Amino acid sequence: MAEQEGINPWGSKSWTYLSSLRQQSPLIQCITNLVSMDLMANTLLAAGASPAMVHSVREIPEFTPHTQAVLINVGTLTPDWLPAMKAAAGVANVYGKPWVLDPAAVGASSFRLNACLELIELQPTVIRGNGSEIISLSTASIGSTKGADSLHESSDAADAAKALAKSSGSIVAVSGSVDMVTDGERVVGACNGVPMMQKITASGCAVTALIAAFVALDPANAFEATAAALSVFGLAGEIGMGMANGPASLRMHLIDSLHGLDEESVVHGVNIPSIS
Amino acid sequence: MAEQEGINPWGSKSWTYLSSLRQQSPLIQCITNLVSMDLMANTLLAAGASPAMVHSVREIPEFTPHTQAVLINVGTLTPDWLPAMKAAAGVANVYGKPWVLDPAAVGASSFRLNACLELIELQPTVIRGNGSEIISLSTASIGSTKGADSLHESSDAADAAKALAKSSGSIVAVSGSVDMVTDGERVVGACNGVPMMQKITASGCAVTALIAAFVALDPANAFEATAAALSVFGLAGEIGMGMANGPASLRMHLIDSLHGLDEESVVHGVNIPSIS
Amino acid sequence: MAEQEGINPWGSKSWTYLSSLRQQSPLIQCITNLVSMDLMANTLLAAGASPAMVHSVREIPEFTPHTQAVLINVGTLTPDWLPAMKAAAGVANVYGKPWVLDPAAVGASSFRLNACLELIELQPTVIRGNGSEIISLSTASIGSTKGADSLHESSDAADAAKALAKSSGSIVAVSGSVDMVTDGERVVGACNGVPMMQKITASGCAVTALIAAFVALDPANAFEATAAALSVFGLAGEIGMGMANGPASLRMHLIDSLHGLDEESVVHGVNIPSIS
Repeated sequence: MAEQEGINPWGSKSWTYLSSLRQQSPLIQCITNLVSMDLMANTLLAAGASPAMVHSVREIPEFTPHTQAVLINVGTLTPDWLPAMKAAAGVANVYGKPWVLDPAAVGASSFRLNACLELIELQPTVIRGNGSEIISLSTASIGSTKGADSLHESSDAADAAKALAKSSGSIVAVSGSVDMVTDGERVVGACNGVPMMQKITASGCAVTALIAAFVALDPANAFEATAAALSVFGLAGEIGMGMANGPASLRMHLIDSLHGLDEESVVHGVNIPSIS
Repeated sequence: MAEQEGINPWGSKSWTYLSSLRQQSPLIQCITNLVSMDLMANTLLAAGASPAMVHSVREIPEFTPHTQAVLINVGTLTPDWLPAMKAAAGVANVYGKPWVLDPAAVGASSFRLNACLELIELQPTVIRGNGSEIISLSTASIGSTKGADSLHESSDAADAAKALAKSSGSIVAVSGSVDMVTDGERVVGACNGVPMMQKITASGCAVTALIAAFVALDPANAFEATAAALSVFGLAGEIGMGMANGPASLRMHLIDSLHGLDEESVVHGVNIPSIS
Repeated sequence: MAEQEGINPWGSKSWTYLSSLRQQSPLIQCITNLVSMDLMANTLLAAGASPAMVHSVREIPEFTPHTQAVLINVGTLTPDWLPAMKAAAGVANVYGKPWVLDPAAVGASSFRLNACLELIELQPTVIRGNGSEIISLSTASIGSTKGADSLHESSDAADAAKALAKSSGSIVAVSGSVDMVTDGERVVGACNGVPMMQKITASGCAVTALIAAFVALDPANAFEATAAALSVFGLAGEIGMGMANGPASLRMHLIDSLHGLDEESVVHGVNIPSIS
């Protein structure tokens, strides 16, 4: 990993995404786990997007075409939710809308692993997981996860992420102390964020939704949009950490900071050196 | 809209409701969307009510008769939840308890629209939505909504609200920069609140639950109770805004302020001029 | 109740549990109500445990054996969730893992009561409820509850708790202004906590999950682990109350304080005199 000092094109790129998000307020459909809904919706609202947790298979044919992106997260998956996830991904594909997969705790069971593998066949634009989740997906094996928490650093998952990106055609993002984004060839690291964010439940789910919102603005450059979203969220965490006394106040200050981010903070604060 | 200066009967009326709520602590059954449960329950607790998110159709015949009001919100509707909603509304009617409908994102699909129209046939005491939702209901058409967010100001929906109130027999409340309440003839505007409340997910859902709690105290005057609930919630938002740095801290300070509201703040702070 | 001044073995015992929790970070599976998931997961994370809200019956045979304890809470029970609860309790028993039952609002209906009685036949290690819930369970009767809120003080439920502990073989904890723990013979009171914690939705659910985490560390001494968990949570509430302006800021400061608790605060702050 080579640190780049001096001019950083990622800062201004990230600001362009964030300011566009606030202007365009894209509608993001989230079919997500029951734990994450509150934080995810508030994250999207604070960033400028318009969230909708519509998840009934009955509504997808009419509703999903009007969205700008779809987020699917399997964190509390049950068999009755899977058809809606597949239907929404399918509609997104038909209408040329990006969709993003969060394979939360994919290593928990073969049911969950198979569900994620089936969803990956529907060609997500982006897959975002922690190290353990990306390794599980890449090797199609369970047990390398500890619930929703990772047993692996993102760097351990670098090869798995590249392999998964190549086999799936998706952009793959791995969260960790350094977030990593790859399209199978290119790799960047997004170095913003603070360790205490891992003590906020669903913070990973929330950033995947933010990725969906950024990618909605620029589907043709999902690699860039994904890295920018990860850094902007991490930067909000860094600023929030300056006011926090623990994980619950960090959660509050992170959302407030995401809402209040200005051009100077983003341009100078985003930390995306290239890694290869 | 004619501003009324001087003595305002709504201030003392609102305080009477709030202090009664704290004394009587009515049991409010909430069959609501998955995003809103945490904020809704905390709003009701902070205001003095006792929330219960009991939603199984198996429990309604025994449980609902013991509640003082029922709140139904279709925000994350699926077909398996609808029978419980209808059953609870039916039991409320049999036992003479008020019930309140929040047609969240009703324009998202014909499934959701039809569900709301069927629920309206069960004669809700109050219907509370944003401008787009009330227009969708009044015209029985979909597509005028952007997920849970409104594309219309409350004033755009004034005629739709009156028409819906007349056709349904319900009190209709429209949220917006000015909240509007009508029984089809009378109209009042509740002018409290701050724009940033729209950046808190489920804040609209939460105020509908507060309406249910106020109406539980005085079902015969649901028009007054509805306007008072909207203003008290908005006033808590105004006070909270004085301490907030963004939407997440506003959420916290709003709930704290709702819990701490005293007579002087309510009597002088409630802002309900008549509009016609 | 005899206050004990001087040396208190519970303080150092509680600190041992909390520091072990932070070191071992046991995986706690929570099959819980929809209102509580966010606060419960954040409570477990702040205390040092690793929560997983996996609740599909399809995943339990593979996933539950890898957990260190299971938490089951019936707060928003529907018939489709009950098989997963029973399956998880059964797997926990087969693998010798402790499991903890929270009979939230058990008096709401005969469906819920029967579900809890069936779960108790699967021998929970600990049952934690409020006074009304424990009386409902002990007498197998409904109606003594007001939704999720208690109509009884914990002291009213002392005999019911002892009887339930004897008949079930479970440790029984009753929350109230003084929390009470009994194995049917021994009784201790955990006196930490502040009244405003009852204005935070799911705070009772959250402490039951913390009990599961403490018991995971020391299943053979579930009586001691339960009392320690109740006191540590209450102590975090006391410290949080010093910074709070209402229930929403108390919730935040409670979680922050739980995360930040140090040895001195716990050793001197835990207040568990013996009662008999």
